[in-house]
Amino acid sequence: MSTGPLALQGVPAPGPGLPARWYFTVGPTQLHPVVPGAIRDALAIGLPSWSHRSAPARSDVGRTVEALRELLGIPEGHRVLFLSSATEAMERIVEGAVQQRSVHLVNGAFARRFRTIARNLGRDTEVLEVPDGEGFELEGVDLPPGAELVALTQNETSTGVALDPAGIAGLARRHRETLVAVDTVTATPLQPLELAAVDAAFFSVQKLFGLPAGLGVLVASPRLVERARERQARGVGVGGYLHLPALAEAADRNETVATPNSLAIHVLGRVAESYLQRGLAELRRESATAAGRIEAAAAAAGWIPFPREERHRSRTVLVFEVPGGSATVRSRLEQGGFPVASGYGPHRDTQVRIACFPVHSPAAVEGLVRLMRG
Amino acid sequence: MSTGPLALQGVPAPGPGLPARWYFTVGPTQLHPVVPGAIRDALAIGLPSWSHRSAPARSDVGRTVEALRELLGIPEGHRVLFLSSATEAMERIVEGAVQQRSVHLVNGAFARRFRTIARNLGRDTEVLEVPDGEGFELEGVDLPPGAELVALTQNETSTGVALDPAGIAGLARRHRETLVAVDTVTATPLQPLELAAVDAAFFSVQKLFGLPAGLGVLVASPRLVERARERQARGVGVGGYLHLPALAEAADRNETVATPNSLAIHVLGRVAESYLQRGLAELRRESATAAGRIEAAAAAAGWIPFPREERHRSRTVLVFEVPGGSATVRSRLEQGGFPVASGYGPHRDTQVRIACFPVHSPAAVEGLVRLMRG
Repeated sequence: MSTGPLALQGVPAPGPGLPARWYFTVGPTQLHPVVPGAIRDALAIGLPSWSHRSAPARSDVGRTVEALRELLGIPEGHRVLFLSSATEAMERIVEGAVQQRSVHLVNGAFARRFRTIARNLGRDTEVLEVPDGEGFELEGVDLPPGAELVALTQNETSTGVALDPAGIAGLARRHRETLVAVDTVTATPLQPLELAAVDAAFFSVQKLFGLPAGLGVLVASPRLVERARERQARGVGVGGYLHLPALAEAADRNETVATPNSLAIHVLGRVAESYLQRGLAELRRESATAAGRIEAAAAAAGWIPFPREERHRSRTVLVFEVPGGSATVRSRLEQGGFPVASGYGPHRDTQVRIACFPVHSPAAVEGLVRLMRG
Repeated sequence: MSTGPLALQGVPAPGPGLPARWYFTVGPTQLHPVVPGAIRDALAIGLPSWSHRSAPARSDVGRTVEALRELLGIPEGHRVLFLSSATEAMERIVEGAVQQRSVHLVNGAFARRFRTIARNLGRDTEVLEVPDGEGFELEGVDLPPGAELVALTQNETSTGVALDPAGIAGLARRHRETLVAVDTVTATPLQPLELAAVDAAFFSVQKLFGLPAGLGVLVASPRLVERARERQARGVGVGGYLHLPALAEAADRNETVATPNSLAIHVLGRVAESYLQRGLAELRRESATAAGRIEAAAAAAGWIPFPREERHRSRTVLVFEVPGGSATVRSRLEQGGFPVASGYGPHRDTQVRIACFPVHSPAAVEGLVRLMRG
């Protein structure tokens, strides 16, 4: 049973082993209710003590990979690679698969980070940029000839701008010679993406999967790995040790190159299985309802949705401008047991960002909404 | 209370929440008994949901850093950087601090990995190599002129060869122009190392700290960071995003560049505090006694210590050749509730490797020893 501020709202606490608060921050965020039990069970069987080259460890990794394959519809040839963060995924993609030139569609801080990484790694980068809060009409985007890779951010956690999944697939089809890398950090698994059309999709687990941070997942197409292998065969550097060819080779044995965060891989599988059990369609329905409820409450409070144009608005990271500043609102929600995130960077003091993830139960959303209206 | 095979040996189980086995594998290994409780407490206060830029999260990171500083005697100017693995530490060191040329003292597979990383990253490498099972007389080692960095492995987990800590410090003093990087993976915190004399010392937490894998720690000297900053200022690549200058800058605020494995950072602090409470001197005494007991039991069983010369032998990773092959022995110990590691690489079927870490209680060591003698 809930205690403290939650009880005042009549909202049940997230679950056994977790505090009586609902984190609506955009990641790290609320832990999924299966997390404490999944960790406890893994410790009780000694999983973190198993060699990552042993059969039981490989089998556990395989189980998580299978759950992700089913949940996300990962094509058979695509591999699931485990890294430490989405940021590391950006580094590994550029190091491995880009010889000279990448193109970056920049709609916020994380897209900008991908570009910075490519530039820091000595690649030429071309940038198509829109101001914060604006989106891309992907149908009209043409890539410059010779672009080896285009980097997109499906859901900008900094600005709440989402890209149209059909537009991503269409762009990929119009530029079959270009590798397509998509940051899906706050998109996976709710926002659809045609993985067969893209070469890299990566996310971290502390967002929509509601895990403790420390694990990144990169879904890599055969072509992405092949590109890195070709470069390697030509004697070109593809990274130090944790590079795409090595990661892919290890993944084919359900292993990793270095000793992985096997506890997180295990727990990720349990959360993915829980999502499978409830069904992605149901999760999407619930999330759309939740987003609608939060948006309505925000409108009633006089907050202004940040991406002005509705079609560019994320439904997982809801961003609002709060007239008069966001600090008081954030403090009130936090004291009520429902912390939300500040705006990002220059928008820190004027905006709030509210996560609408599958870890947030309808009852929790109702509690938040009541507090927003109160 | 213990059940199953351990009970037959009269050995108490490792602790609440952990299975009734004692992992004497060399890492991943036995979890420290405080791990389940430390994880449970962190979940209960919602620590993994906190923003890593928030004051409570920074304070928790700071507490772990302080415990490590005290336990390891980290000099004031040296920084504690959090990575995902020791392998990643090797990559970040080379990317950041080596312009052209590194020297590698190779006494096994992990030293060889460091060299491979430098080569894969396009650096010239010079190798001083001894056959598996032999050590270095560091007093006689002279580095070639122009070596920017020398890489050493204090304790080779693959071969059980240890380097003399005084020899490492002496080498560093004779070559003040050369950065000294030491892989201390199965050395920290038991084997002494004069951190003021070296520029990089790195380890992963699933060894002597008995944590689940997924976190690496790099103790970086001011000079190491300065070298990377100078290179960066000259416009030379120092890495993509998770590079030494950025890691150092974040560490100065008790933050990290990307969202870190904050749960592991928290638990590492609790284990370090537990080690501080017992005292390093006591841990070393206990470990030396344990190593002696295991070595005596091995001798009684007719096993041959692998590094032939006693002065090169590790006291944390005890390696033995088992006449007739190691598979039967390993299977018997595993069934008895005391798994040990196989030999590494070419030594897989002929050797065993037995961890002698501070997580292994004297009672557990007695149980193992009885089973070895049985």
